[in-house]
Amino acid sequence: MSQFNQPLGGNEMPRFGGPATMMRLPAAATAEGLDVAFIGIPMDHGTSNRPGTRLGPRQIRDESRMLRPYNMATGAAPFDHLQVADLGDVAINTFDLKKSVEIIADHYRQVLAQGAIPLTLGGDHTLTWPILRAMKERHGPVALIHVDAHADINETMFGETAAHGCPFRRAWEEGCLQNDKVFQIGLRGTGYAPEDFDWARGQGWTVVQAEECWWKSLTGLMEIVRQRIGDAPVYLSYDIDSLDSAFAPGTGTVEPGGLTTWQALEIIRGCAGLKIVGGDLVEVSPPWDPSGNTALIGANLLYEMLCVLPGVPQAPSRFSGLRF
Amino acid sequence: MSQFNQPLGGNEMPRFGGPATMMRLPAAATAEGLDVAFIGIPMDHGTSNRPGTRLGPRQIRDESRMLRPYNMATGAAPFDHLQVADLGDVAINTFDLKKSVEIIADHYRQVLAQGAIPLTLGGDHTLTWPILRAMKERHGPVALIHVDAHADINETMFGETAAHGCPFRRAWEEGCLQNDKVFQIGLRGTGYAPEDFDWARGQGWTVVQAEECWWKSLTGLMEIVRQRIGDAPVYLSYDIDSLDSAFAPGTGTVEPGGLTTWQALEIIRGCAGLKIVGGDLVEVSPPWDPSGNTALIGANLLYEMLCVLPGVPQAPSRFSGLRF
Amino acid sequence: MSQFNQPLGGNEMPRFGGPATMMRLPAAATAEGLDVAFIGIPMDHGTSNRPGTRLGPRQIRDESRMLRPYNMATGAAPFDHLQVADLGDVAINTFDLKKSVEIIADHYRQVLAQGAIPLTLGGDHTLTWPILRAMKERHGPVALIHVDAHADINETMFGETAAHGCPFRRAWEEGCLQNDKVFQIGLRGTGYAPEDFDWARGQGWTVVQAEECWWKSLTGLMEIVRQRIGDAPVYLSYDIDSLDSAFAPGTGTVEPGGLTTWQALEIIRGCAGLKIVGGDLVEVSPPWDPSGNTALIGANLLYEMLCVLPGVPQAPSRFSGLRF
Amino acid sequence: MSQFNQPLGGNEMPRFGGPATMMRLPAAATAEGLDVAFIGIPMDHGTSNRPGTRLGPRQIRDESRMLRPYNMATGAAPFDHLQVADLGDVAINTFDLKKSVEIIADHYRQVLAQGAIPLTLGGDHTLTWPILRAMKERHGPVALIHVDAHADINETMFGETAAHGCPFRRAWEEGCLQNDKVFQIGLRGTGYAPEDFDWARGQGWTVVQAEECWWKSLTGLMEIVRQRIGDAPVYLSYDIDSLDSAFAPGTGTVEPGGLTTWQALEIIRGCAGLKIVGGDLVEVSPPWDPSGNTALIGANLLYEMLCVLPGVPQAPSRFSGLRF
Amino acid sequence: MSQFNQPLGGNEMPRFGGPATMMRLPAAATAEGLDVAFIGIPMDHGTSNRPGTRLGPRQIRDESRMLRPYNMATGAAPFDHLQVADLGDVAINTFDLKKSVEIIADHYRQVLAQGAIPLTLGGDHTLTWPILRAMKERHGPVALIHVDAHADINETMFGETAAHGCPFRRAWEEGCLQNDKVFQIGLRGTGYAPEDFDWARGQGWTVVQAEECWWKSLTGLMEIVRQRIGDAPVYLSYDIDSLDSAFAPGTGTVEPGGLTTWQALEIIRGCAGLKIVGGDLVEVSPPWDPSGNTALIGANLLYEMLCVLPGVPQAPSRFSGLRF
Amino acid sequence: MSQFNQPLGGNEMPRFGGPATMMRLPAAATAEGLDVAFIGIPMDHGTSNRPGTRLGPRQIRDESRMLRPYNMATGAAPFDHLQVADLGDVAINTFDLKKSVEIIADHYRQVLAQGAIPLTLGGDHTLTWPILRAMKERHGPVALIHVDAHADINETMFGETAAHGCPFRRAWEEGCLQNDKVFQIGLRGTGYAPEDFDWARGQGWTVVQAEECWWKSLTGLMEIVRQRIGDAPVYLSYDIDSLDSAFAPGTGTVEPGGLTTWQALEIIRGCAGLKIVGGDLVEVSPPWDPSGNTALIGANLLYEMLCVLPGVPQAPSRFSGLRF
Repeated sequence: MSQFNQPLGGNEMPRFGGPATMMRLPAAATAEGLDVAFIGIPMDHGTSNRPGTRLGPRQIRDESRMLRPYNMATGAAPFDHLQVADLGDVAINTFDLKKSVEIIADHYRQVLAQGAIPLTLGGDHTLTWPILRAMKERHGPVALIHVDAHADINETMFGETAAHGCPFRRAWEEGCLQNDKVFQIGLRGTGYAPEDFDWARGQGWTVVQAEECWWKSLTGLMEIVRQRIGDAPVYLSYDIDSLDSAFAPGTGTVEPGGLTTWQALEIIRGCAGLKIVGGDLVEVSPPWDPSGNTALIGANLLYEMLCVLPGVPQAPSRFSGLRF
Repeated sequence: MSQFNQPLGGNEMPRFGGPATMMRLPAAATAEGLDVAFIGIPMDHGTSNRPGTRLGPRQIRDESRMLRPYNMATGAAPFDHLQVADLGDVAINTFDLKKSVEIIADHYRQVLAQGAIPLTLGGDHTLTWPILRAMKERHGPVALIHVDAHADINETMFGETAAHGCPFRRAWEEGCLQNDKVFQIGLRGTGYAPEDFDWARGQGWTVVQAEECWWKSLTGLMEIVRQRIGDAPVYLSYDIDSLDSAFAPGTGTVEPGGLTTWQALEIIRGCAGLKIVGGDLVEVSPPWDPSGNTALIGANLLYEMLCVLPGVPQAPSRFSGLRF
Repeated sequence: MSQFNQPLGGNEMPRFGGPATMMRLPAAATAEGLDVAFIGIPMDHGTSNRPGTRLGPRQIRDESRMLRPYNMATGAAPFDHLQVADLGDVAINTFDLKKSVEIIADHYRQVLAQGAIPLTLGGDHTLTWPILRAMKERHGPVALIHVDAHADINETMFGETAAHGCPFRRAWEEGCLQNDKVFQIGLRGTGYAPEDFDWARGQGWTVVQAEECWWKSLTGLMEIVRQRIGDAPVYLSYDIDSLDSAFAPGTGTVEPGGLTTWQALEIIRGCAGLKIVGGDLVEVSPPWDPSGNTALIGANLLYEMLCVLPGVPQAPSRFSGLRF
Repeated sequence: MSQFNQPLGGNEMPRFGGPATMMRLPAAATAEGLDVAFIGIPMDHGTSNRPGTRLGPRQIRDESRMLRPYNMATGAAPFDHLQVADLGDVAINTFDLKKSVEIIADHYRQVLAQGAIPLTLGGDHTLTWPILRAMKERHGPVALIHVDAHADINETMFGETAAHGCPFRRAWEEGCLQNDKVFQIGLRGTGYAPEDFDWARGQGWTVVQAEECWWKSLTGLMEIVRQRIGDAPVYLSYDIDSLDSAFAPGTGTVEPGGLTTWQALEIIRGCAGLKIVGGDLVEVSPPWDPSGNTALIGANLLYEMLCVLPGVPQAPSRFSGLRF
Repeated sequence: MSQFNQPLGGNEMPRFGGPATMMRLPAAATAEGLDVAFIGIPMDHGTSNRPGTRLGPRQIRDESRMLRPYNMATGAAPFDHLQVADLGDVAINTFDLKKSVEIIADHYRQVLAQGAIPLTLGGDHTLTWPILRAMKERHGPVALIHVDAHADINETMFGETAAHGCPFRRAWEEGCLQNDKVFQIGLRGTGYAPEDFDWARGQGWTVVQAEECWWKSLTGLMEIVRQRIGDAPVYLSYDIDSLDSAFAPGTGTVEPGGLTTWQALEIIRGCAGLKIVGGDLVEVSPPWDPSGNTALIGANLLYEMLCVLPGVPQAPSRFSGLRF
Repeated sequence: MSQFNQPLGGNEMPRFGGPATMMRLPAAATAEGLDVAFIGIPMDHGTSNRPGTRLGPRQIRDESRMLRPYNMATGAAPFDHLQVADLGDVAINTFDLKKSVEIIADHYRQVLAQGAIPLTLGGDHTLTWPILRAMKERHGPVALIHVDAHADINETMFGETAAHGCPFRRAWEEGCLQNDKVFQIGLRGTGYAPEDFDWARGQGWTVVQAEECWWKSLTGLMEIVRQRIGDAPVYLSYDIDSLDSAFAPGTGTVEPGGLTTWQALEIIRGCAGLKIVGGDLVEVSPPWDPSGNTALIGANLLYEMLCVLPGVPQAPSRFSGLRF
């Protein structure tokens, strides 16, 4: 029997039974002794259009039930190398977004103090702000790989500093980021001004708009990203709306012309070798995809993050090698 | 041609076309000159379980497109007697519930100052608090007919005073209510303590639990209500979750064993003769009923409120008189 | 083995398999030799609000797969007494409603000439007009039991005489009805004028508005109906929107405060003993109820019609007789 | 702090967060020390029409998140008197229904041996057979209150003895039932023979068809039931399809003309005082009600069962006493 | 303040509030003074399979609420250069398709006479026929870019000349098209004869089947298109079913193997520099995509059309220039 | 008039009417005289996660109504060359998966004995096992093209040999396959061990994981496949979950990063010239895609299989030849 927690297998309990924890892993009350903690942040008071991300963590966990332990493409076997558990949800304040920001920061300070890498099930994108604050306190400013349809760098929304369109502006203000190591991938759509993305460029961030990604593998892009980030601590913030709505219909602020699941997998798998200190998967909104598939994709992307954490080896390819 | 605004008719524009205003009435920028103003408050940051009521006003307006001007049961012809328009939405602050409470109060002060009776398309039930505040400033304390599955009299929720479970406690604190003329109809479900509804009873409010309504016409109840309220100004707050989820599936905090649409119509029609100074229809949450039927029922109930406003005569019954 | 067609049983073929005919009965190319013919009329160009009834016959047939041959409440055993088959669909002209009216009339003339009683799967309510025309040609003017939320007696809609709000005006114009034997049950909602239903009353028709039906068994009403109709040939036109949207959400022109499935069953079962010459079940619109339950209810109501056709005996009650 | 497990409250963790256990109660690995155990049986290979009940337990737990500890109608406070936990799911064999029957029986033998009362989240109705077998082994033959649209007494279905239409025939064969204390309530629909329900009557069971329940409170019926059952151990098997599909659309074998949620509550509340030894709520099928409301109703009915277990006092009514 | 109408911004009114006009622009009663008019044509009586496009304009407007004024990919700022408004819906005759064709033609004659460029929210594809008739009367025969899964060149459907499969045959008959400047892009699927698309080729039209587009950017194709069309007036007719159903599930006549949203954006953006005189986006059918995403994509494509109208400059790319 | 059965055309009966057979072809009671038989196997007791494939055949047939006889891309005209009919469903045993395996094998033995090529509408993937058994008995071991997200080569699932994850292991055990001519395309996702796919490789099978297919036409791959298979009899088993969930959301065991509909068409069209002896399209699960689009894609893929059967010529391309 393994020294590490294992996902409950489909031959022990049918996939549609068992606990609705992430990957049917054991629940844990604290991060003590964990290498990695899956944490839910059930909130949507930071959303500006369709709500529903408050139900994201529950459905991501539910649909994660199909996930088996081994990654058939990369050979990663995270549960052979890491102690992983589901830490449950952050008890955010449903009625006060600003207080929730503080609650989240406190929660992550504690998790980080216990030495676990947090992988977060969102929840709207506001949550990345307090997480990055806690990250900075622990690791100093971090590199950032931010995959999204939106830049989320608004100074304010409706006059407010806490909103799902502002987290990276806030993180920048608080000095959480290594500006030369910030990558925003997948941005697109419409803006309030033609310069909307230029502020980011002005800070030295690298903005890769969705149009630059069309028709292409992103394996090459990730090589550049890895090279520039080097061994800096890096945080991966993954907004499901970076995907085209074909691939992830269940989200609140859809912009056409997005990325594909192939690219999503290439991006995350391309993080192998980086010193990832945390990650999140945000903006899954169950009411807009009753099939659960968007949450299922989200669960898979969180699993892929787990597969590229430090300490998880990647295996050589077993591909057919057919040339066509 | 009438001196009053008329709903756009189905023989002038197909029902599935035309403006998505309430009943396809003209939009108005202010309440100036109006007898009645339909007002949307698109918010859900006061909800504690499923979100989505922020989209309620849009869908209620959309589904109101079927409504014709005459009430075939009561003979009411509101558009022969009242100037009615759609005043659009209150620009609440999406990211701050407390500020939204103030914004709503200000908005309704202005509407009331212009002499219009507001009929509100919610939105979550938090909104009734600031409306009642404005009502009191205009009319003094008001009688209240509150139809709901929940008492909404919590002192706080999650430590917060602004939440969809608290509006009537707040209104009471602010002296907005005539306590001997408060009726809560349809309450049911589970509570945090067996005394949950007793606080209301302690203030002299009349609590009619759903179980008391089962199997019965509420025509008799409304006679009692009318008698007790007399000619006091009265506010009607109608939570769609007072209905059993069979009749109104699209809402966020469902409790089984609720009222029927027959009772809903009896309650509102039973308000004819009262001095209604305002009304709201809250908690329609479109994502949980993609058919739109819950919003359609909500639109009808708002229309029925219009039909019992002061100045709208009721016609004698044309029923068959068959005895069976 | 029976001399009559039998529905394919669930022990011969799983319920979710087998042909998607009505009740999984044999299909028939003509009505030759049939006592009863189920006929689909897939159309919705007569609808004025939500479309979708064109898909009604397909889904009614699909969901009819659960129906077993015996009626557990009335003891009726229609397949012991009648030769029944599914005659497929009328090839209406999708792009021309007026031509479709003629196509339908022709089709039913032929079915009636072959001696079968048609039970129609709609389709929008326009279809009852041409059916009644064919009925009159065959049987002379008929009595009518019309269960609906709407009177469907408009002189025109959008200037047109063919529309789902006009069939009974047309039938009246063409002398298809015995005016003293016309019953409209379940009418409600809003109208273009307070006199909307009075035209019907003026012709001697009996209008039983929904409000008269609330809280009551309709068994007594049907006694009156049977008494008045006597042995006249009677046509039963059943609009699914007569039901409250709780019971039948999948339809296009919902009006609150409708009938219940208990009343629906009481109405149809209350037709036993009448000389029914045809019936229809119209306005099921699948896109507004993906569960299929509205179609399933529709299928059951069509089955109940079959159970009260002339020649099908009703059995004595086997009820418990408990008094409570 | 209570000596008993308490549901996680909405002021400690938002309703849309926290563990997806029944009522957000603690999970337990065994029934040791428990008075009551909620147990899921995720299966649908016993269904004959629409599948999906395998996902019932997960969604019932998910939607149970709204449930608070006190019953506002009856005053019951189960968590003041009973130690209750969520025992998770039975690891049935997805691919073999017959083996699953044995697995379930074994599982319940153990739970009963530990002295807990099992309340089961189904799952299709086949599961009641092995539960009743275990019940008999523990308690001897039991009284039965069976609420359902179907009698579920088929000798076989498709030649098989294990199927969701057969459990009570099997239980009878195995001598699990006190035949003079068996009540079947809500039966209706169509059958394979007019005598379908007569077999039950022949065993001395009391069959109350749905038609006998229309328009009536079932409080009186439950008085009769309580009187006849007396102090015999009684099992309560509640099929959600006993409700009309208006109230519970998410199920697989819908029959029109069913019970209401008012009656459902009256039935279960009417069990107070009986010596209940177990109960189940079966046939919730999530894919046919994406709103989750059917599961939510199911969760409430399970909570109501908890409220009438031996040892939970009922409080005097606090109703208004208004006469109308 | 701009001299031009501006979309209502998300910082003035939450995205989920405000008027349900296209992009929350002001409504206008006539095209007087407008450069561009968004016009809805709510119709589906021209559809041959699934209905529902009658609700397309309402949902496109609703979902357009997320659109901000600037195009982040092309730098286009249409509201800095054009006076744009929402002209509401054409009051087509719901019950008569042929009359609707005339109504539409009349409506567009008037709009064109007032000098506005119409961008149409469909509605089924029949509507392009009368629009092209009006276009020809105003501009003479026009070039055509027709993006679709279907050629829509049937001589008749069901014997009718007005149907959503016939508009371009009709336009050709009426001499509306410059045959050497007609491009049909995305055609695929099954046909009534292998020569179905050859008729178009025989008129000199360029047919680019979907298979020719797979795996490729369409930027090159649009260069060819622009070169061939030159400065001829050009009409852009965009059927949402040109997209693969992955990207646009909410439509009525799905054919597999379609275009992507990347290609859709490339096509429309590739029209910059052409003398566009009108455009339409047709066949969005809300009932088949309750998420609203198909309508949202449609709204975006209409916005992209606005961005390439004459008079709107395109800005130089701000792309990262990373090579990967 | 053709000597062969023809699909019922849209000009004879509206697409939304007519029999719900595959492509609205005639039904046939036996395969006698048929070249090709469409056969439904309505089952889902072999599924391990979401159920619902039991309803697949019904919805595939329903959505196949749009299919016209000619293939516009390949020029194939199958109904000019083959006698095709819909043979209805196999009466599997709903409650016993093992017996169903035998029932299916028997059924296909008979169909094959009558000389028809079976094209199967699934149903879960378990069904391919008994079909391959019957194939082997008729043709000897066959080549296999297996398109899927999963290898389906588990020795057992939950200890069972019959399950939707095991059919190709079973077929291998029974000697049904020519191991050097087995191709598995599209595999991906997570596994129980890194070697999950290696067993197949160990038998000499060619495994082409999804990652090898990204960004590429599969035309080249199919050349290799055709070359290796040569003139061996070949069976084509197509699991709809090989497609990315963007393209086929309605299935039970979704894995991200899948194939596209372009690749699906390339794969099947790339089979032209092979000696196909049978094919299936499995795992369409209607409840997870109420739009019906997944079933519609499935129906198209089955049609494409028909188009590449021996005896159906492919026509030269009519493509535009534009170079871009």
